[in-house]
Amino acid sequence: MKSIVIHAAKDLRIEEREAEQPGAGEVQVKLSAGGICGSDLHYFNHGGFGPVRLKEPMILGHEVSGHITALGEGVSGLALGQLVAISPSRPCRQCRFCNEGSFNQCLNMRFYGSAMPFPHIQGAFREVLVADALQCAPADGLTPGEAAMAEPLAVCLHATRQAGSLLGKSVLVTGCGPIGILCIVAARRAGADFIVATDLSDFTLEMARTAGADKTVNMAAAPSDLERFSADKGTFDVLYECSGAAPALSAGIAAMRPGGTIIQLGLGGDMSVPMMALTSKELCLKGSFRFHEEFFTGVSLMQKGLIDVKPFITQTFPLNDAIKAFETAGDRSRSVKAQIAFA
Amino acid sequence: MKSIVIHAAKDLRIEEREAEQPGAGEVQVKLSAGGICGSDLHYFNHGGFGPVRLKEPMILGHEVSGHITALGEGVSGLALGQLVAISPSRPCRQCRFCNEGSFNQCLNMRFYGSAMPFPHIQGAFREVLVADALQCAPADGLTPGEAAMAEPLAVCLHATRQAGSLLGKSVLVTGCGPIGILCIVAARRAGADFIVATDLSDFTLEMARTAGADKTVNMAAAPSDLERFSADKGTFDVLYECSGAAPALSAGIAAMRPGGTIIQLGLGGDMSVPMMALTSKELCLKGSFRFHEEFFTGVSLMQKGLIDVKPFITQTFPLNDAIKAFETAGDRSRSVKAQIAFA
Amino acid sequence: MKSIVIHAAKDLRIEEREAEQPGAGEVQVKLSAGGICGSDLHYFNHGGFGPVRLKEPMILGHEVSGHITALGEGVSGLALGQLVAISPSRPCRQCRFCNEGSFNQCLNMRFYGSAMPFPHIQGAFREVLVADALQCAPADGLTPGEAAMAEPLAVCLHATRQAGSLLGKSVLVTGCGPIGILCIVAARRAGADFIVATDLSDFTLEMARTAGADKTVNMAAAPSDLERFSADKGTFDVLYECSGAAPALSAGIAAMRPGGTIIQLGLGGDMSVPMMALTSKELCLKGSFRFHEEFFTGVSLMQKGLIDVKPFITQTFPLNDAIKAFETAGDRSRSVKAQIAFA
Amino acid sequence: MKSIVIHAAKDLRIEEREAEQPGAGEVQVKLSAGGICGSDLHYFNHGGFGPVRLKEPMILGHEVSGHITALGEGVSGLALGQLVAISPSRPCRQCRFCNEGSFNQCLNMRFYGSAMPFPHIQGAFREVLVADALQCAPADGLTPGEAAMAEPLAVCLHATRQAGSLLGKSVLVTGCGPIGILCIVAARRAGADFIVATDLSDFTLEMARTAGADKTVNMAAAPSDLERFSADKGTFDVLYECSGAAPALSAGIAAMRPGGTIIQLGLGGDMSVPMMALTSKELCLKGSFRFHEEFFTGVSLMQKGLIDVKPFITQTFPLNDAIKAFETAGDRSRSVKAQIAFA
Repeated sequence: MKSIVIHAAKDLRIEEREAEQPGAGEVQVKLSAGGICGSDLHYFNHGGFGPVRLKEPMILGHEVSGHITALGEGVSGLALGQLVAISPSRPCRQCRFCNEGSFNQCLNMRFYGSAMPFPHIQGAFREVLVADALQCAPADGLTPGEAAMAEPLAVCLHATRQAGSLLGKSVLVTGCGPIGILCIVAARRAGADFIVATDLSDFTLEMARTAGADKTVNMAAAPSDLERFSADKGTFDVLYECSGAAPALSAGIAAMRPGGTIIQLGLGGDMSVPMMALTSKELCLKGSFRFHEEFFTGVSLMQKGLIDVKPFITQTFPLNDAIKAFETAGDRSRSVKAQIAFA
Repeated sequence: MKSIVIHAAKDLRIEEREAEQPGAGEVQVKLSAGGICGSDLHYFNHGGFGPVRLKEPMILGHEVSGHITALGEGVSGLALGQLVAISPSRPCRQCRFCNEGSFNQCLNMRFYGSAMPFPHIQGAFREVLVADALQCAPADGLTPGEAAMAEPLAVCLHATRQAGSLLGKSVLVTGCGPIGILCIVAARRAGADFIVATDLSDFTLEMARTAGADKTVNMAAAPSDLERFSADKGTFDVLYECSGAAPALSAGIAAMRPGGTIIQLGLGGDMSVPMMALTSKELCLKGSFRFHEEFFTGVSLMQKGLIDVKPFITQTFPLNDAIKAFETAGDRSRSVKAQIAFA
Repeated sequence: MKSIVIHAAKDLRIEEREAEQPGAGEVQVKLSAGGICGSDLHYFNHGGFGPVRLKEPMILGHEVSGHITALGEGVSGLALGQLVAISPSRPCRQCRFCNEGSFNQCLNMRFYGSAMPFPHIQGAFREVLVADALQCAPADGLTPGEAAMAEPLAVCLHATRQAGSLLGKSVLVTGCGPIGILCIVAARRAGADFIVATDLSDFTLEMARTAGADKTVNMAAAPSDLERFSADKGTFDVLYECSGAAPALSAGIAAMRPGGTIIQLGLGGDMSVPMMALTSKELCLKGSFRFHEEFFTGVSLMQKGLIDVKPFITQTFPLNDAIKAFETAGDRSRSVKAQIAFA
Repeated sequence: MKSIVIHAAKDLRIEEREAEQPGAGEVQVKLSAGGICGSDLHYFNHGGFGPVRLKEPMILGHEVSGHITALGEGVSGLALGQLVAISPSRPCRQCRFCNEGSFNQCLNMRFYGSAMPFPHIQGAFREVLVADALQCAPADGLTPGEAAMAEPLAVCLHATRQAGSLLGKSVLVTGCGPIGILCIVAARRAGADFIVATDLSDFTLEMARTAGADKTVNMAAAPSDLERFSADKGTFDVLYECSGAAPALSAGIAAMRPGGTIIQLGLGGDMSVPMMALTSKELCLKGSFRFHEEFFTGVSLMQKGLIDVKPFITQTFPLNDAIKAFETAGDRSRSVKAQIAFA
């Protein structure tokens, strides 16, 4: 079977690997769609990010869906031929954080396509994938592309839950990459009343409006359009910080009303934070990282038509054009989510 | 001006009263629409409820909207002729609960149309009403009928916020009077994934489906349709108990999953609660009473088209048919919300 | 080895059973102290409670401590001869509730001494017990009797955490059996400012004062001493309901201030609840059931001297006097916690 | 009467002002004790902090107590001669934040001794002070010095409540000035199990141990003593950041366990935050600012002996030595809280 392997920055190869057979409790899946995530792009463009560096070849990818081709012993509730979204989250269920129910903080997490431990955790961009049945969310009624959006959607649902009830609240989203866009979708679904989105790209801001933003601000062109929300101690109840850029966070903090909640999703390095405003307005800056059961929640919401991700799958490339897919995925002037069609 | 006055059970009269002039910080409103609430019906049918009894004639009504006809000194942000929804909540802003921000628990609350203190707090069903500017939510773009729905909607938004994030959650609603119906609307707006509603009337269950319920159960006809959700410690994350009936609460508790939240809105008397299940499943049974800032939230959500209450205004009667309106309002086989048109 | 076996109501026997050897990840413990819990008493006095009935002989007991006599393969962090408190909670770590981190709601829980599934889950009142290393909290520095109090203490710590911050709050405790007493200890430790306790026994109320209650009310003798706290919508922020008796809950609800939290620990059957007061004061009635990591928390707090349970071990009986121990344990005029010394 | 007036950095004068008479709802207080706060020191040493600058002479001080010398019309519940702690918090009770119960976020706050609005809000360091009766907490049984500690204690109680239940939790306190010390006291009172404190001064770390810290780390001498708590994703559930120094916050974040809460009290300027760790460990960084009802809570806890602040009043100076008092207050090698005796 073919797989998409990163060897070093800009050295992406399609290689043959041997397909595996499912053991007890596992299923074999013929991959259908795979979305390219920001972390995949970091490996592709820079060979890693921060302290996380490639030390050996690694199969990329963790946003995938496919059809079941074999059921291991003891698997129930799944059927041959069924479309499934496959969660890349594989906690050990044994460490002290798993033992407290904080599975996304597992000390021995084997998340697909991660260079953090060595040997690396190989990813899911391969024509045939063997996964635990527990990882598979039946996705009947969805397209493979939608099913592969379950992973970034889960990130945004998890983030949204950190903010408590959004019903009737005012929301700011800074950074309109795929995560920012899906946060807008999630916030709208959760009952937000007023949503403002910021970015530097007119293309993504147009997508933000499609996702449900009431107003968009191009911070390169008209930053004062955001500043006006800072009067009288500010406007927004909730900020999804999806840029990882300190200026976006600072501008956001100025526009937050007292007692508001900032969900930090963007993974930047050290960021300068206007602490006087954060403290005196009693803001809560809360990190959100991956997800757990929200993967299944997202599939269900898509199946019921309560969330629509299709407009944000901006490109789909055949497997053999994987490199072109990676080049496109990073271009904010024309792409939100680029996917690869494996079959 | 005419007003709708209750003297005793079944003794409802349309009487002439003198119109008031607005003082500083007040506005005069020519009433347009007034909705009949369950408490109005209790006064009409029984002269009160529980320990709350009529002791003198009282103007009924607290779900009202109208157009501003005069502005008192110092009022800004409101305009002559503007449609406003008028909040019936008038806390003292001085007592120990107001001093803690729990305005709906004010010890000296002057909620329109309440027989609890004596002299009673006169209600809002009168052709001309003087109100504090702070009570008025500008309702431009809404119909007067929609604006008058702001009050019961606020009750349901307040209740929904008690339950935390509903995004992707399973919700049960027991009792589909106006409050139950608007709780379904609010739960759907807040991102609930799966909503089941129960009642004894097929008409209201049909309305529940219009409001967004995925499934309805007529507990008189097919209670086992609910029982099946009780397997394996239960299904629902959230229960809105809107019936005030002990059997509905008991059936609901059986169908709740561990850690779930029950919002009690129905005002019954003492109720027998299956405490073993509540305790061992660690359920949270939480009272919800009236609202505060949610009144303004609801108007905004309606103005943006994020919540639509129009299908649930089932009847509108002219002022002179007020008695007929009250008789209709209590008939669950054909009415969700009956309103009176004052102008 | 000897074990304490219940065959039917009032038919308690000391019987010989074969001691087990520890497997991988397990330890063998020579039991030292065992406390008698209310559920043990229900089996002893009534052969069960509610729908839970004895259907075969069952070893009782789940509040135990002892010294390690053998270590199974792969066990680390524990030593031969070490005193350990043994948690009776054994979730499956596989079911949907374990998968969400709600281990105390495990669908396949094997809690010591439970007649709920059949075959019953045998208890821990035996001279030699084999347990998972994960169940064992090192209890160096404690007496065996204190270590055996870790279990009821964990119940009360878990309950206390349900109530959020208690710092400076007013607390009511209804029912001063062992759980009520330890809730007082926990509430005082958590920073409660004012604690009132109620019961029908002067002996337990004296113990409540030892535990930290500022004021006690004998509801048989002077119920009006509690009623006075009901003025102006009430006084208490938190109620630990430990009696399982409807009149205690009703009196407590009347004395709660708006927005307060009631933690229900007492396991009664159906209880009549004054729902009008609960709803209009927006109280939260929350079940609390068993515990999870709080077992280890409690051992640590005792080791540091931050919690002292010794005054509440009112009697210790030799194993051969087990029946006398059970008879004493249920006598509120002289016992809070009766324990059995196994060695 | 004499008052302590700051004219510019290092220009502190004792000046005569005219004493006021109490109006309706007010009391006149003969001041007894006044504590010097960090913000007083900023005015004294630098003429302000950040954007807050002196523009006219201002009476300093907001941590005060005294005896009532006159009661205005309509005042009840207070007596002539009674010792009271006086809250410096005077919200308008009219603005949108007061209207939501967020009184410490009042847009028109008149907090004693604040140069933020112009004209400045004059402070409380004067021999005779007229205050609203609502500001006064009866402090019978306390010394005037203890009563004057109610203000910084309230700051720490408010901060502690932000963190939820501390029962059995591990706590880190960075920065052991008066606020850090009182946070240790509050955390211990709230049931924390393990408390570590850091600072650069051995004197304040000794005070931290008196306050209840289990372990102290001098970050200048032995920073690795803290680093060891960072293993396996960290140790602490709660961090009180009281230094306002970015290195302290960074070291603290490294030592936090996933899901932990950081309460930011130290008012620094912009701070560099290790956002990758904050995000991936899903930490919550929450500002805490002043207090509201906690002022009264703190007085009560001191009166009951549940909190003891006396060891931390390290110096008391007569009014005429005010300058010496200010010089001492800033010296961490010998002072936690320096107070001025006005009578």
